[in-house]
Amino acid sequence: MPPKPIQAYYPEILNQCYGCGQENTHGHQIKSYWENDKAIGRFTPEPYHTAIPGFVYGGLIASLIDCHGTGTACAAAYQAEGRAMDTAPPLRFVTASLTVDYFKPTPIGVELVFVGQVEILKKSKVIVVVEVTAEGVLCAKGRVVAVPMPASMAPE
Amino acid sequence: MPPKPIQAYYPEILNQCYGCGQENTHGHQIKSYWENDKAIGRFTPEPYHTAIPGFVYGGLIASLIDCHGTGTACAAAYQAEGRAMDTAPPLRFVTASLTVDYFKPTPIGVELVFVGQVEILKKSKVIVVVEVTAEGVLCAKGRVVAVPMPASMAPE
Repeated sequence: MPPKPIQAYYPEILNQCYGCGQENTHGHQIKSYWENDKAIGRFTPEPYHTAIPGFVYGGLIASLIDCHGTGTACAAAYQAEGRAMDTAPPLRFVTASLTVDYFKPTPIGVELVFVGQVEILKKSKVIVVVEVTAEGVLCAKGRVVAVPMPASMAPE
Repeated sequence: MPPKPIQAYYPEILNQCYGCGQENTHGHQIKSYWENDKAIGRFTPEPYHTAIPGFVYGGLIASLIDCHGTGTACAAAYQAEGRAMDTAPPLRFVTASLTVDYFKPTPIGVELVFVGQVEILKKSKVIVVVEVTAEGVLCAKGRVVAVPMPASMAPE
């Protein structure tokens, strides 16, 4: 059986995100896979996801980092609780703060690889660092402060 | 004549951005208007631009801040040079670093207003702060370090 992305474990009603919701047919459907204490994702931008022609739009890179960061936080939080991602209660994180440093113009037309690692894990917040590479070259690095979804955001 | 957004002054070949390129028919076509030393923009997210249902996707908010930040930098740089935005040589900024703090879940279905103001303006970089409000409530605040487009990014 192929590995299941972290986002595939989100409850269906919480899986509508434009960035990574597997149920959002308009969105990017970003996928993150948990492998040995880090999360790995891959995404090939479309030709129209451009900034200056030839390079990837920075807002898309921010989106990859955002969703991959909250996904990484989710997987790490399950692991810290010593339970599998398909067990209840479900964990779902949202972004409190996002920082992205763009080191190099990111070439369009190639697969981007993003790796998320936990920097700090507490009950109240998880800080994740995400590196984005293109053909092995580090193009951007982000930091996501992820917090458990507040009760005020819970769908009725 | 209706006011022209800052992005409408970008040269056509540099106006392909997925976030704010007026020539990118797939993109968000974010528009920023320069008014008395600050830039103002408005955007109503589509129903599918969701995060958790009912709230706007944070990656879209990051995109609004990103493009509005570089647009603000552009308009401010022309002003600092004492010339109009339709004069040569054209100025075009890209993002070196982006930070977004999300203060409140941003409701979907209403118009977002974003206001960009210059914090620091130098030849080599412009730092812009952008506030995003929904129905008058501050939902997110971002900081964009914008730099002149490097020669290495110039289309052939």
